[in-house]
Order: sequence, then structure tokens, then C-alpha cells
Amino acid sequence: MNTGSVGRISVAVVGASGYGGVQLVRLLMDHPNVEMVYLGGESSAGQPFADLYPHLGHRTKLVIEPIDLDDISKRAQIVFLSLPNGLAAGMAAPLLEKGCKVLDLSADYRFANLETYEHWYGIARSDREIATKAVYGLPELYRRRLANAQLVGCPGCYPTASLLALAPLLRQGFIRPDSIIIDAKSGTSGGGRQGKIPLLLAEADNSIAAYSVAHHRHTPEIEQICRDLSGQDMMVQFTPHLVPMTRGILSTVYANLRDPGLVGDDLLTIYSAFYRASPWVRVLPSGVFPQTKWACGTNLCYIGIEVDERTGRAIVLSAIDNLIKGQAGQAVQCLNVMMGWDETLGLPNLTFYP
Amino acid sequence: MNTGSVGRISVAVVGASGYGGVQLVRLLMDHPNVEMVYLGGESSAGQPFADLYPHLGHRTKLVIEPIDLDDISKRAQIVFLSLPNGLAAGMAAPLLEKGCKVLDLSADYRFANLETYEHWYGIARSDREIATKAVYGLPELYRRRLANAQLVGCPGCYPTASLLALAPLLRQGFIRPDSIIIDAKSGTSGGGRQGKIPLLLAEADNSIAAYSVAHHRHTPEIEQICRDLSGQDMMVQFTPHLVPMTRGILSTVYANLRDPGLVGDDLLTIYSAFYRASPWVRVLPSGVFPQTKWACGTNLCYIGIEVDERTGRAIVLSAIDNLIKGQAGQAVQCLNVMMGWDETLGLPNLTFYP
Amino acid sequence: MNTGSVGRISVAVVGASGYGGVQLVRLLMDHPNVEMVYLGGESSAGQPFADLYPHLGHRTKLVIEPIDLDDISKRAQIVFLSLPNGLAAGMAAPLLEKGCKVLDLSADYRFANLETYEHWYGIARSDREIATKAVYGLPELYRRRLANAQLVGCPGCYPTASLLALAPLLRQGFIRPDSIIIDAKSGTSGGGRQGKIPLLLAEADNSIAAYSVAHHRHTPEIEQICRDLSGQDMMVQFTPHLVPMTRGILSTVYANLRDPGLVGDDLLTIYSAFYRASPWVRVLPSGVFPQTKWACGTNLCYIGIEVDERTGRAIVLSAIDNLIKGQAGQAVQCLNVMMGWDETLGLPNLTFYP
Amino acid sequence: MNTGSVGRISVAVVGASGYGGVQLVRLLMDHPNVEMVYLGGESSAGQPFADLYPHLGHRTKLVIEPIDLDDISKRAQIVFLSLPNGLAAGMAAPLLEKGCKVLDLSADYRFANLETYEHWYGIARSDREIATKAVYGLPELYRRRLANAQLVGCPGCYPTASLLALAPLLRQGFIRPDSIIIDAKSGTSGGGRQGKIPLLLAEADNSIAAYSVAHHRHTPEIEQICRDLSGQDMMVQFTPHLVPMTRGILSTVYANLRDPGLVGDDLLTIYSAFYRASPWVRVLPSGVFPQTKWACGTNLCYIGIEVDERTGRAIVLSAIDNLIKGQAGQAVQCLNVMMGWDETLGLPNLTFYP
Repeated sequence: MNTGSVGRISVAVVGASGYGGVQLVRLLMDHPNVEMVYLGGESSAGQPFADLYPHLGHRTKLVIEPIDLDDISKRAQIVFLSLPNGLAAGMAAPLLEKGCKVLDLSADYRFANLETYEHWYGIARSDREIATKAVYGLPELYRRRLANAQLVGCPGCYPTASLLALAPLLRQGFIRPDSIIIDAKSGTSGGGRQGKIPLLLAEADNSIAAYSVAHHRHTPEIEQICRDLSGQDMMVQFTPHLVPMTRGILSTVYANLRDPGLVGDDLLTIYSAFYRASPWVRVLPSGVFPQTKWACGTNLCYIGIEVDERTGRAIVLSAIDNLIKGQAGQAVQCLNVMMGWDETLGLPNLTFYP
Repeated sequence: MNTGSVGRISVAVVGASGYGGVQLVRLLMDHPNVEMVYLGGESSAGQPFADLYPHLGHRTKLVIEPIDLDDISKRAQIVFLSLPNGLAAGMAAPLLEKGCKVLDLSADYRFANLETYEHWYGIARSDREIATKAVYGLPELYRRRLANAQLVGCPGCYPTASLLALAPLLRQGFIRPDSIIIDAKSGTSGGGRQGKIPLLLAEADNSIAAYSVAHHRHTPEIEQICRDLSGQDMMVQFTPHLVPMTRGILSTVYANLRDPGLVGDDLLTIYSAFYRASPWVRVLPSGVFPQTKWACGTNLCYIGIEVDERTGRAIVLSAIDNLIKGQAGQAVQCLNVMMGWDETLGLPNLTFYP
Repeated sequence: MNTGSVGRISVAVVGASGYGGVQLVRLLMDHPNVEMVYLGGESSAGQPFADLYPHLGHRTKLVIEPIDLDDISKRAQIVFLSLPNGLAAGMAAPLLEKGCKVLDLSADYRFANLETYEHWYGIARSDREIATKAVYGLPELYRRRLANAQLVGCPGCYPTASLLALAPLLRQGFIRPDSIIIDAKSGTSGGGRQGKIPLLLAEADNSIAAYSVAHHRHTPEIEQICRDLSGQDMMVQFTPHLVPMTRGILSTVYANLRDPGLVGDDLLTIYSAFYRASPWVRVLPSGVFPQTKWACGTNLCYIGIEVDERTGRAIVLSAIDNLIKGQAGQAVQCLNVMMGWDETLGLPNLTFYP
Repeated sequence: MNTGSVGRISVAVVGASGYGGVQLVRLLMDHPNVEMVYLGGESSAGQPFADLYPHLGHRTKLVIEPIDLDDISKRAQIVFLSLPNGLAAGMAAPLLEKGCKVLDLSADYRFANLETYEHWYGIARSDREIATKAVYGLPELYRRRLANAQLVGCPGCYPTASLLALAPLLRQGFIRPDSIIIDAKSGTSGGGRQGKIPLLLAEADNSIAAYSVAHHRHTPEIEQICRDLSGQDMMVQFTPHLVPMTRGILSTVYANLRDPGLVGDDLLTIYSAFYRASPWVRVLPSGVFPQTKWACGTNLCYIGIEVDERTGRAIVLSAIDNLIKGQAGQAVQCLNVMMGWDETLGLPNLTFYP
């Protein structure tokens, strides 16, 4: 196994051609402690990466290579898998055996219970043993476990935004478990770099619509972590919407407070304390609600909080960049934690506004 | 009072320069039974309308005139008021006295209880007698009362979308009154033709955010009609969001069903029956959820329905064009009802897609 | 051949599922003199049209049928072909033989010289005889020939905008033939309803770029008509750009004036006279330049004119809706001319602004 | 004068609240050699910067201060002026006298000939002596002069994109001087953070239009540098357009080649040589044309080149981020040159795509 150039860890990205892949490549280019040694892909094998993304031509001469796990494991210490659901399940085991650490951006290693995965994703699995060792890659909630992880199942974009909004309330039992409604809004890049009709500008621009109402596959993922945080069984109502913008997720989360005496300032205190050691979460002052573009191009999650004293509900708004904190940036954040580096290393924390 | 050209009713639009005004002008130009005889405005008085909106230069030579109620009442049988909140309250009475029928697009005549208005809008009112005669201009719910109205308080854009989504459930008591959550999304034209920083393309594009969380003034308007429909007191949770698009509102409405046995097809049947005589509401087939752009440039409201059997909730999605069914088109629909004309007369019912 | 319902002409649309098709369907639904009797398509045959475009569910129950020319000719008097380039060439002849009038929206019948077509489109042709009978469907320039046409080659979107901007200058020899530069900007719907990566919202939004620089296939089409108008050989410089919007084309046309004494008002007079009998062209007052959205959803072409006295150039700006005046609307306008109906019949002439 | 923290130069930004200001603040936060010690503004004096831009709340506690030149000169070695045209003219002299270096982002110090400025900007000037010492802040063309500059007039956004596209052709006399046409397209942030109606999302979205045709004030600025580069008098045709996007400028530049034998590869060689020592200009391979979003959030200028052998024209496309390379980033690049630092220091060179 190659150890990279002096002081740098060697890294491979498998599935480099999609939006997750190009974010990883982009982020890792600026990361001081890693060296990108391999980009892999099937359909694009043989192509210079700069043919796919010409704006990066001045920064990389890497060519996309066919996926050869043996070769990868010899060249890279860290492997990011950024592939369609179901493919990582066949790659993680051999890579781990050969000594690589693996961060998977698909849904394959997010579920403690593979029956849930099989039910919602319709993909059979035979790697239960490996899967139980995977750590859910949300550092704000599982930092300690990630420090020793060999295999990370990086969270979905919607679960990231939604769970960061809910976690302080759940951990301390402030809300009624059957009252959680998550109304989430995403830019279209969440659909990936695929030529799908509903993702065309001509179709998606100037319009908003819900999709997969009551049936989106991020529902069980959110519920799994909610249960873990609260220690009790619960279901959430989750509705995703497609918004005419490229990047960004806003989760508007509703929950009934158990204690009618809690006011907004109480929640601000609770959230600030909960995230005190989390450099990537920013709790906003009272009355300020996040715009998704504040988070665009950064690994930040901005959270705004309101308590409606009339109705007894907390309304929490969280905004992230779906491709960074919601995907590739969070994977790099996990890597930082796994390697014992500063959690903020190499990650962008300021957008360009407007 | 002028009776317009043969067979046509004479119409005035006061406040013609804003987005509500230009929609009214545009719609009335194509209405076979009316003749626009007067356009009024303060700041733009003296300007040809085509200077404000050059694309209409080939269709109108009208000049915006100062607002003179006496003059208006002599020339027009019907007066649309499209002014900032608080101004109609001083104009409706004199116009009614002189025999005009008045349709107000502001919030001034939407409230049966003026204390609610005064509390939420911070504007004192001394026209209680007139206000009690106003009819709430949502024809799908108040068609019969509108037929005899002299003064109509046209609904807000969010209440229109939200109430059409809720009405069938409320009227028949299918939902728990304390469970209603309305997560609404609007294009930026809802903010009017005003040079406000948050409405700039550079600020609002590529971003989504909530605003007025727990405090938006459409909340009491929605609640008033919910109470009227259900016959019981209730509060709703209403959260508006600004979406990077010009037109359109999507209301995502959540409510807990009283009867856990109700399934999606039951609700489809209920909604289809409820709106059978309402040509401007289109209940979509099971599994189809509306895009706002389907309604763009039309007076239609598209409604999609889902029941989540896991959580026992109904999720109803309604999409309208905020400036047409949510504002000017609905006012014209009210006029049609008031005049005994076909409710669809002169109103657009097909968008151009995409 | 079916004559439609009383007083109506029976019309078929072949290739109904794409953006050109759905515009045709939409426009023909509102046309008082036609009845749509047949929608044809290959990949979508068997599907109700409302499955493809649910927002039209309340207006049509038509099902897309396989393309059977014999059947079509029995049922329809008029056939619109809205297919990829090269397919109409095999359908027009049999349809014409069976007595149909044919309006083709592809490039197949736009060229008097099929060698030019074969060279630029890379498609061999064997229907020279038929092709020479086709009339170029730009009514503002070829109204008289269209009145007797059996086969119309409807213009491309860019040529429509560009030629309407140039025609008055060319017809009267006001400009230097080697000086014409057309810098054109289009919304992404011009790329069709196809799942192409560059047309994704995530790729095309927030960005503008040129494409096919110096090599776009609309170049020879524009040049052909320029030669016909001016009576002399000429080449134009044509550069198309993709703009982050759904609809609309703006052509910015530059040309050196032969006579340095011509001023802007002279050109206004010349253009106004040239288009006096053309209800779909609107010459704007001095100093007013068109926005594409003014034309959106209409069959209008707005033209703004400037003369730069410093440089001796005319700069002409023309704005159309690429899918209406640039495609389907113009085809209907051609039909109106062919049938001897009013040229404006059934076509929209007012947008909804903003 | 304060020397900043150890090893850092103290910097003031006057006019911090606008888009230029917030870019400067954002960029300078990440610059390793500077320390921001002062943010100035009139209308926003007294406000914490994070009240204007809440997303920066975790990175700055600076409060906007009233503009006091004496105070500024004591605290800062470098002063960026980011104010409306005409204001810098009264501030540069006193700041220079007190020993500050001044970089002005307005038009005030861009012109060698103040009569040109007075004519096009309509503002009288009495600081000719100071103005003649100002250096035009386009480092790719005036790097050597900038190294010794005390006062820099930073270029306009359109001139930056246009001149970088033209310079190699002009310097070596490859093009006919009367043939230059610049068709430029800009995002709406170029209009500043002002509540102007045409910059509203509702007005500008889904539309493109030209403005200031033949009369834009960047015309004489471009011409001045063209003359300087070519050594001969010349006029250019410059047409700006407003594009529905927040950031970015694309300049499409047309010019007739003197030598009809030059082909595209020749120009690629010429451009590559011309910009060999310019790290912020990226000449693209043959057949690749820049998208503005490639440059978004970076200080890069991407250039694509085509020669149309049919017409004998060069068509050069240049893309920048109007607020970075077109404004604040370029000012920082100038600072780097003035201070003898690496020209790339502290400036972003990779966008997040898509």
C-alpha cells in the first residue's frame, strides 16, 4: 500500500464522474493531508477527468481508471465509494480485508438492520457481518465511534439536514415522538448527474413539487437514528420537494413540545450547548432563519429555531449544501475524525455571497 | 354610471401599476363581458400604462389616472381595488354608496372580526358596518354568498391554496383540528413589485428560506375560514417559504386523520365529490403530485392527495399561480359569480408547458 | 378524409410527446377552427397524452397512437410533423399524395438546396422533387407563397428571430452583406425534451455559455433566406448561447450601415412600415429593448432598434418565445395563412407578466 | 499606522456593505498576509457586519464604522474603496498623503483622460494630478506598473472579461481595429445590492435583455486600453445583456483577422504564450467554450477561441465571476502584485461544480 507523498495519505475515489465524485475530487485537491492517487469509474474509464470537467483541467491530469479492487488497495489507504446503491456492498469487504479504510457515500452501509435496507431499497444483501461494523457517518452524533471506524456509511443528504435539526430535541426527550414532520426541500443536483427528464432545467425551473410523498427511502434512515437518539420507537413524516436551484437542502422540522413552558430562548440555549463542540453547525440568533445559499460551497449546517407558543410546537430550520455537508464534505469530515485530524481540516467554511 | 360598450360592464382598476394590477388588466383585456374604462394609481398617475409594461403597448392606450372616487363611480360599475393593506378601508364605503360593486384584493375585507385584523395588521379600523357585509371571495366555498355580494374581500394567495387543500377534510370533520400544519412555498412575485433587497434575483435565486415563521399574517385568515368550515375553534401551523421562482404557490398540508381506516382512494373520492361543481379545482389521480408550473398563467388549483397509512396522516398538496388563482384571477372569478356569468368566463385554463 | 366536427378542420400531430408536440396540442386545443383527431408517436404509443402531461388531463382524453400514415391521411386534413431531423423526409410525400397538407417542424423542408441540408445535417435525401415544392414557413416574409402551399418547412427558432430582425435591412440593401453578426441566446427548451446532461438544471442553471461556435446548423438556413431577401450572396456570423431559462430567444444582430447618415428614427420608420401588415411583429419605441419574457407564451416577436452613430452600425434586438413563434405557434400561423383564415386566429398575443 | 498582527498587513474596506464589499471581506478573511482592521460605510455605520450578512457571523465580529479618513489612515496600510462612482475622487488624495496605498473599485481612477470620465459619467473632477498616477488594475496587462503603484483604479467587470479576450490579438496587431464587437452577458449581481425593480427576481428571471445599447459606460474604458495595447485609435461595439443568474460574465468577442491564413490552432498558441505567466487566465483546448459557472467563486478567467474560416473572424469567449475576477478578487490580485507577493496568494482557484 502506497503511503502517498511525504506526510500525505493516499486516497482513491471510486465513482468519480458523478456529482458526489467531482465534489470529493474538488475537496480532496485542497486537503493538506491527502493525495489523490486513483479515480475510478466504469462507463468513463480511460477518460481524463478534465474531459468530464474541463474547468479542472489546470489542477488535475488524472485519468479515470477501471475499477480494480486489488489495484486500488495497493495504491490507496483510504477509499471513497461514490456509486449507485447496491454496488458498495460488493466492494467494501475485499477492500477492508486488504487493509483499506472505506467511506461509502451510498445507502449500503447506513442501516444497522439490513432488512430495513432490503425492504426499502429492494436489493438483497449477504454482507451482514461487515454491515454491522459500519459506523453511521454523522460526526456531530457519532464522533467517538467514527474515530475507530474502518467502514463508514455516510448519511443521505436529507437525513443529515433533518437529524441535525432534530437531535438536540430527541436526545433529551423534549418532543412528542409521534409528532415529527419533516418538510424538506432540495436542489436538483440531489438527483445526480443523470439525464432524467424531471431534472431538466426546462422541467424543473420555475416550479416546485413534492415527490415520493410518504414513501421516500430516506424515511427509514431518519427513523433509525431518531430511535437511537431517543431510545424509543418512532415514525417520522418525511416529504421531499424539488426546488428550482442547483444546490442546497432546507429541512423545515415540526414537533410538538412536551413541556408547554419552553420558549425559543430555551431552545437556543439547548442547541448551542449541544453543538458547542461541533464546528460545522451554526445555531443562528433568535429570529434569523437560514437561507440554503449561506451554506452553498461549504460544509456548514445553519440552524434557525422558533417556538410557536400558540400551538406548542418547535419549528426548526436547517440548511446545508446537499453535495458537501450532505454528501462529499461530510465524508471528508468523517475521514478527518477517523484519522485523528482536526475535524475542519481542508473543508470550506465560507460561501461567496450572493 | 357608464354601462360600457354594448353588452359590456364598465370596470375600474385602482392600483394598476403593481403585479396584482397588471394581472387584472391582462385578464380583463381578454374578458368578453367587461370593458376597462379606468386605471388608477397615485405614484404612477399620468403615465401611459404601456410605459410601465411596454409589452402591452399594442393592446392598451390607457393612461393611469389619479384616484378620484367620485369620478370612478361615475365611469365604472365594478371597481377592483389592488392597493396596499389599509387603503381600501377608506374607499369601499363611498364607492358602495355610489352604487359600485367593489372587489378588494388587499387584506382589509377578509376578516369577519376586525379585532383580528387590527391585531395582526396593526391598522385601526372604523368601518365595522361595511366590513360585516363583505363576503370572503373564495368561490369554491362561498359561491352562494358571492352571488349577492356588493363588497368582496378577495383571499390571500397562501390562504387560497391552503384552504382549497383543507376544505373537504374540514367540512366533514375528517381530521384532528389541532394537527394541521401548512408548509407553504411561494415564488417571489408574492412580495410585489417593490425594490426590496430580499426579492432581488441576486439574493433570492439559488436559495430557499422560510420567513415569518409562526407569525405570518395569513395565519389568522386561514384559521378564520377553518373555523367556519369545521364549526369549531382551531389553530393552524403555517410556515411560508420563499422559492427561487417568479410565480406559483405550493401548499403542503399535513393533518392527522380521525379515522385510521381511511385510505388514499377514499380521500380522492371525497375531494372529487367536494369539487365536482368547481371548474377551477383539479383533483389529480392517485400518485400524481402537482408542480406549481402546471398552474402558471391559469386560474386552476391542482390538488394531489396521499394518505400515509404508517403515520395516519393525510398529506395534501395544492398548487396555484399566486397572482391568478391566488389573486387577480380569483377576483375575476368572483366577479363572474357576482354577475351571474359562467364562473370560467374569460379566465385562462391552460398553461404553456414547459 | 374526415372533415372534423362541423366547421372544423381535422388535424393530426405526429411526434406529440416532445416540447414541439405539446405546444402544438396546447395551441390547437384553443384554436376555433380545428379539431385534433390524432396524436402520433413511436416510443410513447399507447399512452394517454395526459400521462405524459398530467396538467392537461382535464382537457384531453386522446391517446398517443403508432404512426400509420395511411390511417392518418384518412382521419386528418392537416398533418403537423414534429419529429427529429430526417424523419419527415420519408413521410411528407405519402401524406401529400393522399391529399393532406403537411407542416413540418424539422429542418427537412427548410432548404431549397438539399446539398446544403445534406452537408450540414449529414443526412442523405432522395426527395428533391417534393422538397422544391416546400415553402419556407415564415409568414412575415413568404405570406403569399404560403397561401398556396401544400408542404411547409417551418423555420428554426434562431432563424425566425434573426431573420425578422434582419429582413427590413436586407430587403432594401441598407447594410453591408459581409458585416452581419448574430449573437443569439436561447432558453434550454430549445434542446428538446431529452435527458441530455448539459440541459439538466444542475448544469445549465446559473451559467451562460456559447456552443457550436461558427458551426451551428441554423447558419446555412439563415444565409439562404438572407440571400433570397437581398439578392446577393452572403455569409453571416452566427453564435448561439444557452441561457439559464426555459423559454425565449433573444437575437442581438449587428450590421454595418451602408449609409452613415441613417439614424435610429429612420430605422424605426423602415421597420414599422415593413411590418405594418404583420400582426405578430411589434416594433418597439426608440430606446426600448425587448425582454424575452414579454414574448413568453405568445406568438409575438418584439423588435428593438438602435443605431450607433459612433461606429456606423445598426444593432437590432428581437425576442420571441422559441417554442411558439420559434416553432409551434408559427406553424399554426402558417396554417392560418394556408387556410385563408385570419393570421392571428387561435394564437395567444398577451403574456402574463412577470 | 498600525502594522497589523505579526507578519500581516492592516487593511481597511470602505463601502463594506455592498456586493463588492462583502466579496472583499470574504476574500480578505482567507488571505494569509492581511488583517482586516476596519470596515466603513455611511448608511450602515454602527451595524455589526454579521447583521447584514448573518452567514458570516461565525467569522467576524467587526462593526461597520463611519468613514473617517484620518482614523482609517492611522489604522490601515491598505485601503480598498468600494463606493459609488464619484466618491473615491474625494478620498484617494488624503489617504495617499497619509501614506496609505489605495485600491479603488469604482470608475474614478480608471481613466488616463479625465475628460472621458467626465463626459461618460457626468461627474466633474478636480484631482487630475492624482488621477495621472493611478495604475489600471488589470495585472495580466499592467503587472509591472502595478508593482510600484500607490493608487490603483480597478477595472470594471465587463472590461476585465473583454480585454483579456482581446489583448493577445490587439498587442500583436492581428485584427482589424474597426471590426471589434463585444456582446457581453452578465448576472444581475453586477447591478449591486440595491432595490431596483429590474433586478428583482420576478422581473429578471426567465428572461434576457440587452440594456444601454451603444451607450454603456464601460465602452470608453475598454477603448482606452485597446488603444494602449494596439497603439492606434479605435472604437469598439459593446452591448451588455442581463442574464437570469446571480454571478458571472461571458464576453463573446468578434473581430476580423487581418491574415486570412490564421487558424484556430495558431490563436491557441498565441493566447497560451501571451498568458503563460498569468496564473489566473486559463486558455481552453480547441473546441471547448467556457461556461460562466466554471469561474464562479474563483479569480479565474477561462478563454475559449474559435476561428471561423468561412468568415475570417476570430470569436473569443471569456468567462469570469463578475464579483471576483471582475471586481474584488482582481483588487486582491493587484494588492498581491503591489506587495510583491505571489499573485495567487489567498485567492480561490477552484469552483464547486455544479
